[in-house]
Amino acid sequence: MSENSLSPRAVVLLSGGLDSATVLAIAKSEGFNCYCLSFDYGQRHQTELRFAEGVATDLGAVEHRVLRLDIGQFGGSALTDRAIDVPTDGEEGGSGDIPVTYVPARNTVFLAHALAWAEVLAASHIYLGVNAVDYSGYPDCRPEYIAAFETMANLATRSGVNDQRISIATPLIDLTKAEIIQRGRALGVDYARTASCYQLDESGQACGVCDSCRIRRLGFEQAGVPDPTSYRLS
Amino acid sequence: MSENSLSPRAVVLLSGGLDSATVLAIAKSEGFNCYCLSFDYGQRHQTELRFAEGVATDLGAVEHRVLRLDIGQFGGSALTDRAIDVPTDGEEGGSGDIPVTYVPARNTVFLAHALAWAEVLAASHIYLGVNAVDYSGYPDCRPEYIAAFETMANLATRSGVNDQRISIATPLIDLTKAEIIQRGRALGVDYARTASCYQLDESGQACGVCDSCRIRRLGFEQAGVPDPTSYRLS
Repeated sequence: MSENSLSPRAVVLLSGGLDSATVLAIAKSEGFNCYCLSFDYGQRHQTELRFAEGVATDLGAVEHRVLRLDIGQFGGSALTDRAIDVPTDGEEGGSGDIPVTYVPARNTVFLAHALAWAEVLAASHIYLGVNAVDYSGYPDCRPEYIAAFETMANLATRSGVNDQRISIATPLIDLTKAEIIQRGRALGVDYARTASCYQLDESGQACGVCDSCRIRRLGFEQAGVPDPTSYRLS
Repeated sequence: MSENSLSPRAVVLLSGGLDSATVLAIAKSEGFNCYCLSFDYGQRHQTELRFAEGVATDLGAVEHRVLRLDIGQFGGSALTDRAIDVPTDGEEGGSGDIPVTYVPARNTVFLAHALAWAEVLAASHIYLGVNAVDYSGYPDCRPEYIAAFETMANLATRSGVNDQRISIATPLIDLTKAEIIQRGRALGVDYARTASCYQLDESGQACGVCDSCRIRRLGFEQAGVPDPTSYRLS
């Protein structure tokens, strides 16, 4: 989609999942020209990048870029290290411990790249779909982390120097999955075009049993919205 | 070099330049097992990565990794965008403006990756050769930026959650180039094995006229130390 030159710009981190699709719809509804950024970081479910591309087109992004990242080589997460199994035995993070699906410093690495692009674009906002409710075990999904990143970002950049602030917008941070789904539906998000599964197959079908699928299914149930997802196991 | 299991670990950002070589020597002298991290980000002077490899070996790093980064595709800097000339007409940053050799959010992107590795290694320190004296025009070389990154890092990670703090060490931040050279010489750094030039040729020879070469030459002169660098133009 072409840019509206009267509107401000935002960089939107887009994974192809339900949350970031909703964030893009919110940023768009708030009047931003949206520049979407996805990462290929050796995640198990690379198919999600095809979902990200589709979502960016559906929701009228000005541009969508995919950056390759090397963080998978550091190991330490079930999402990038095939020696670690993804959990299927309950909602991750529920125990108060940090889940094995946590990728070390992932949001910091993602936001750092978004900041670089935001600076070049002179974008005033970076949108990120973190959520402190369902993913309470991830340290880099907490509001105090986001606030600290924003403070740092405004000291790191030309923008910060020239008194044009950069804001990190996290419109989902306090919402339940059901509330996120209701919000997105109201904005016209087609969730059949998004994927949440940690074990997505190449055709884009979700496993139905990993913790990410469980949270998603429960979200649709609690929202009272039909779940358009195709699951291998029900 | 093999690891001393009684000593703590540090991630050291290593560019192949004079400053980061000195930082590695300092981290080593402070008793750390040093894990060096370099980046291939489309910089003009890729030859510097060969210098980084040599420096890591010379100074006894436990491991040296080179990560590919995509930030060059965002443009906006003379160091990654060949359409922008590197300056040769005076010390950059001297005017108070941000120099064209500034790469958007570079230190944030570098530190974010260092943080990911530090978390997996359970390293307590990240060493970075930023300097607020010669590069005063770079927003991400200021002490207040480093302090903000450290605060954010300790909220971002498992380490931060488990009360094992991560420190960002910037031992050069207040030193002049001459003082850096004197410090490194005392620790046995061989500066002939380092490169600072923005326009390094493939053989590793420095141009002698870019602002980085000017600062380096002046540093040796002011330190009263013979300059071992091979320059194309004197």
